[in-house]
Amino acid sequence: MTIKRHFDAGLDDLRARLLRMGGLCEEMVHYAVKVVVERDESHLAAVREWESEVNRMHVEIDDVCLKLIALHQPAAGDLRLIAAALKINSDLERIGDQAVNIAETGVFLCREPKLKLGDIPRMVEVAVGMLKDSLDSFARLDVELAREVIRRDDEEDRLKSQTFNELVHMMQRDASTIQRGMDVILIARNLERVADHATNIAEDVVFMVLGKDIRHGAHDGEPDAPASPEPPTATA
Amino acid sequence: MTIKRHFDAGLDDLRARLLRMGGLCEEMVHYAVKVVVERDESHLAAVREWESEVNRMHVEIDDVCLKLIALHQPAAGDLRLIAAALKINSDLERIGDQAVNIAETGVFLCREPKLKLGDIPRMVEVAVGMLKDSLDSFARLDVELAREVIRRDDEEDRLKSQTFNELVHMMQRDASTIQRGMDVILIARNLERVADHATNIAEDVVFMVLGKDIRHGAHDGEPDAPASPEPPTATA
Repeated sequence: MTIKRHFDAGLDDLRARLLRMGGLCEEMVHYAVKVVVERDESHLAAVREWESEVNRMHVEIDDVCLKLIALHQPAAGDLRLIAAALKINSDLERIGDQAVNIAETGVFLCREPKLKLGDIPRMVEVAVGMLKDSLDSFARLDVELAREVIRRDDEEDRLKSQTFNELVHMMQRDASTIQRGMDVILIARNLERVADHATNIAEDVVFMVLGKDIRHGAHDGEPDAPASPEPPTATA
Repeated sequence: MTIKRHFDAGLDDLRARLLRMGGLCEEMVHYAVKVVVERDESHLAAVREWESEVNRMHVEIDDVCLKLIALHQPAAGDLRLIAAALKINSDLERIGDQAVNIAETGVFLCREPKLKLGDIPRMVEVAVGMLKDSLDSFARLDVELAREVIRRDDEEDRLKSQTFNELVHMMQRDASTIQRGMDVILIARNLERVADHATNIAEDVVFMVLGKDIRHGAHDGEPDAPASPEPPTATA
């Protein structure tokens, strides 16, 4: 195999690892919320087991990134791809942490009288959808999809505020719901953070493909064609 | 200047930028909490202004990192330093976001009757201390200090749980405090996250210096001398 083909195979391997890790994180969030919605504590064990797996992948992917840089000295688009992978890796690992928090809080809730969950089920749908699409945008270098993920974050924030307000009113009407209401609010915050991490991933994809930074409201009114002379190597 | 000296100057510049950004983040957290503790809304404007500055630095530092890699093709310790800088940069930017959240929630609290703040002042002290020391450990490649920062995170978690419990009891006794109590709990969570980011930074420092990953409870019982054949270039 030529060195170039070695490098391309390395990038494909890196992408595949990140997508596997991302898929596991989606499952984790899904099952974490099942603890709350289905009132079934047994999912906590699965979520914790996946967390160990995600943590192992996190360490490995960082290692793969550094080795690719050290061995192949990539430039421009390929270097941006690897830098994006380092960041996406951290975001995924933290999504795993959020899932564990949700499942752990969920176990407390299971043991208490049932409480209304506001927009939590809808929040899960939005957050997991954003995560899935941010990873798809990474796999396909799809800037339009990445931008769409970034826009969807407002919907998640709106749902969180709505849930927050509903629950505070409930707690004010009935003090016996305060402890549980707090728990549901914390879960809503965890889901909001999952959506934030998906937004970070989508922003990294835009930077990786276009070679320009759209974070912090920098200008992003340009056409969608890759502006950089060397976009990352396309997926095999 | 030789290429090697160019590279060393580049690393010094990178370190200096991160330390400046970190110093600004410390100030942001301090002033954000002043909004709550001193009941003085005017600090919000300063915190927001610093946030723009921090966001600008965030974009620049990522750019500096990629350029250093592309131009100088660093290996081993120096590459780990730059990878650590990319991650520390993200953590600092998110600490800035937490400070803005604290100041914004603080403004709501200022406009309501005074409420007891539990261990919030102590939480600020611990979180800002951890941030400061994590940055010092980065500047001095001080693994022992970094480990000490990681240990201190338990203290912050304990303070957060204590504040959380105190406030829930207060809300249960007096429903008129629910909205404000929730706000204080959110601020406690923000401070806990500042401490989490400082912990991430300290873990990156250990990895950078020793070339091994201590995240996720990986073994870290080795002596403190740099185990890697090539530790990062020391600070000028």
